[in-house]
Amino acid sequence: MDFNATTPVEPEVISAITEALCDAWGNPSSTYLPGLKAKGIMNQARDSIARMVGGKASDIIFTSGGTEANNMVFHSALEHFWKSRASAEGGQEENHQPNGKKVLPHVITSNVEHDSIRLTAEHLLKVGKADVTFLPVSKVTGRVEVEDVMAAMRPNTCLVTVMLANNETGVIMPIKDICQKVRSAKRSSSSPRVLLHTDAAQAIGKIRVDAQELGVDYMTIVGHKFYAPRIGALYANGPGVMTPVYPLLFGGGQERNFRPGTENTAMIAGLGKVNSANCQYFRFNSHFPGTDTLPNTCNVSILGQGLQGHRVLSTCRRLLASVGAACHSDRGDQPSHILLNCGIPYHVAINALRISVGKGTSRQDVDAVVEDLRDAVERLEQTD
Amino acid sequence: MDFNATTPVEPEVISAITEALCDAWGNPSSTYLPGLKAKGIMNQARDSIARMVGGKASDIIFTSGGTEANNMVFHSALEHFWKSRASAEGGQEENHQPNGKKVLPHVITSNVEHDSIRLTAEHLLKVGKADVTFLPVSKVTGRVEVEDVMAAMRPNTCLVTVMLANNETGVIMPIKDICQKVRSAKRSSSSPRVLLHTDAAQAIGKIRVDAQELGVDYMTIVGHKFYAPRIGALYANGPGVMTPVYPLLFGGGQERNFRPGTENTAMIAGLGKVNSANCQYFRFNSHFPGTDTLPNTCNVSILGQGLQGHRVLSTCRRLLASVGAACHSDRGDQPSHILLNCGIPYHVAINALRISVGKGTSRQDVDAVVEDLRDAVERLEQTD
Repeated sequence: MDFNATTPVEPEVISAITEALCDAWGNPSSTYLPGLKAKGIMNQARDSIARMVGGKASDIIFTSGGTEANNMVFHSALEHFWKSRASAEGGQEENHQPNGKKVLPHVITSNVEHDSIRLTAEHLLKVGKADVTFLPVSKVTGRVEVEDVMAAMRPNTCLVTVMLANNETGVIMPIKDICQKVRSAKRSSSSPRVLLHTDAAQAIGKIRVDAQELGVDYMTIVGHKFYAPRIGALYANGPGVMTPVYPLLFGGGQERNFRPGTENTAMIAGLGKVNSANCQYFRFNSHFPGTDTLPNTCNVSILGQGLQGHRVLSTCRRLLASVGAACHSDRGDQPSHILLNCGIPYHVAINALRISVGKGTSRQDVDAVVEDLRDAVERLEQTD
Repeated sequence: MDFNATTPVEPEVISAITEALCDAWGNPSSTYLPGLKAKGIMNQARDSIARMVGGKASDIIFTSGGTEANNMVFHSALEHFWKSRASAEGGQEENHQPNGKKVLPHVITSNVEHDSIRLTAEHLLKVGKADVTFLPVSKVTGRVEVEDVMAAMRPNTCLVTVMLANNETGVIMPIKDICQKVRSAKRSSSSPRVLLHTDAAQAIGKIRVDAQELGVDYMTIVGHKFYAPRIGALYANGPGVMTPVYPLLFGGGQERNFRPGTENTAMIAGLGKVNSANCQYFRFNSHFPGTDTLPNTCNVSILGQGLQGHRVLSTCRRLLASVGAACHSDRGDQPSHILLNCGIPYHVAINALRISVGKGTSRQDVDAVVEDLRDAVERLEQTD
C-alpha cells in the first residue's frame, strides 16, 4: 500500500513496451520505414497523453521523468524573465534596483512540494539566481491558500509553482483558483509575465486533471505514478509560441529542440497505452475536513510511545507502506518535513504512516492491513 | 545498414526489460523488499556496465541518454572551474583580466563532434559562459591530432572533449595520447585542472573501450548504439571525489544526487544485460589509410552527377542506410558538415552514403546491398 511511491506497470503497457522494443527499434529521426514507424508510435502516444490531460499533442514534450520536467520549468521561467527584461530595456541584460542591487526573478511555491521543486528552488536562492517565497500551507486546511499566493506576489514574480495534490497528505491544492486570481491581478506593464505551473505527478490517474480547465501554463506528468513506465512529460500550453520553453539540454534537435536526445520509443509507447480513466480507488478519509484530497491516500498516525512509523512498518507482517516520500526513505526515523509544515505536531508526525492504495487493492486487502497493523502495535506495546 | 543510428535490442535484453517491468516495479528508493529488489537489479547493471568500460561500479551514473551525459560534462567542468577559482581567490567568485574582462573557462573540442557536444559548446560560447576552440580534424588522417590539442591549450583551459570514434567516418581518435600529453603538460599552479572527456557513443560494442586505459576523467555511454535500450550513463573516475560532478537536475537524491529522478529500473536492467564482448563485425575499408577506424562503418561516395546520397538511397530497393547522423535527417539534401570538416570536397560529400553494419549482418547481406546500389545507380543514370 505504497502506490504513491510508484505503481506496477499495466500488462497492456508491458506488451506495448515489449512490442516496441522488438519491432520499433528504429531511430525516430531516420527517414526510412523503421524510423517512421517509431515516430508514428511516439506521435500516437503524444496524442493519447495530450487527451488525458486536456491539451493538444503539440503541448506535450517527453522528458526522462518528473524531476527533469520540474527543473525545465524553473529554467524556462528564469530564462524568459531575463530575455523579456533584456528586450524591454533594449538589450541591457541586467537590471538594477535604485540601491544598485540586481533585480532578481521571484518565484512563489509552497513548503510541501516534492524535492525536485523544493531543492531546485533552494539551489537558485542559494546561488543568487532567484528570490523564492516558500508559502506555508494552511495548518487548518493543509492547502496553499489563494490569498497567501496573492499576498506573496511581487512586481518581479515570474513563476508560481504549486503541486496539484500532495504526495503525503493527499491534499488537493486550489490550482484553478490560483491561476484565475494570478491572471486577473493588476500588474504594472514593466512587470514580467507570471508563469503558472503545477506538478501533477500525484494527481493524474487519481482525479480528473485538465490543464486547460486548471488554467496552467505548464504541468508535470509522471508515468510511473499512474501505472505507466518510468518516463515523464512536460505539458506546456503552446510551447515556444504561447508559453516559453527553454531547453536544459543541447543536442540532436529531438522534441522540436525543447528536449534533444534520441527518444525512448518503447517507454513512450507504454506511456501512450495507459488509460487513466480506468483508475478506480477506494475513498479514504482525509485529515483536513472540508479540503478535497486524493481518494487513494491516507496518512495516519497510531498515537503512543514507541509506535514510530518506521517501527510499526517493520513489525507488520504483510503491509508494505512508507512513512513519506520514497526519496526520503534514508531518513525514515525522522518525521516528515511535509507533515510538520502542515502543522502536525512532532510526536504525531513521527508516528505517521502513508498508506496509498492502488486500483487493484480490494476491501479484503484493506481489512487484512488493518488487522496486520493492530497485531504489530500489540506486539510493539508488549515489547516496550 | 544504418546501425550507427541505432541498433535493435537483443532478445535477452528485451526479456530482462520485460521481466523487470513485471517483477521489479518497486521504487528503488523504497526500503521494503520490492524496492530492494529493484535496487539490486540496478546495482547488478551498474557492475556490468562498469566492467564493460573498465571502471568501478561507483564510477557509473545512469542518465536518460548520451545527450544528457554530454551536457553534464560541460556543466561539471564549468562549475568546477568557478568553484576552484572562488576558493583559490578566497571566495571571490569572479576573476578579471588586467583589461577588466572576466576570465572565462576555455574548452577544447573538435569540429566533428555529435550535436550534443557541438551545440552545447556553441551555446556556452554564444551566451558568454565559455571560450571554445573547435579544433579542425586533420584532412589527411580524419583525426584530431594531439599536437593540435596541445597547441590550443590556454592557461584557463578546463575541459578537453573529443569523441572516441566518429559516427560518420568511423575514425578512431587518439584519446589515450591526448590524455597523456595533456596530463603531463606543465601548467602554472594558478591554472585550473584540465578535465578530459570522451564521448564513446559510437565506439562501445565496436572496439575495446577501457576508460582507465584511455586515461579519461569522463566517458559517455549510450545504450542504444550497442544493442541495449534507450538509456545512457556517464562514467566519471571517482565522481565527487577524484572527478567533479555537478548535477544538472535537483530532486530526490537518486544516483547519489549526481542525477536525481526515480530510476528507470527496466531500461537499466536491459543495459546491464548487454554483453559487448559478443559483438563481431565485418571489416570495411576506411577513407584514411593509416588511421584506425571502426570495423563496422563505411562512408562511401559514388561519384557522378545526380548521384547525391539521398537520391541513391531513395532509389535502392533493399538498402536502408543514411547520409549522416540520424538527427540531421531533415537536412538530407545537404552534404554532411562532418565530412566537409574532414576535408572531403563538396561534390564528393554530397554523394556520401553512411553504411554501418550490425552484428547480424552477413556476407550475403553485403553482396545484396552492393547489387542493390549498382542497380540504383544504373536506374538513376538512365533517368538523367
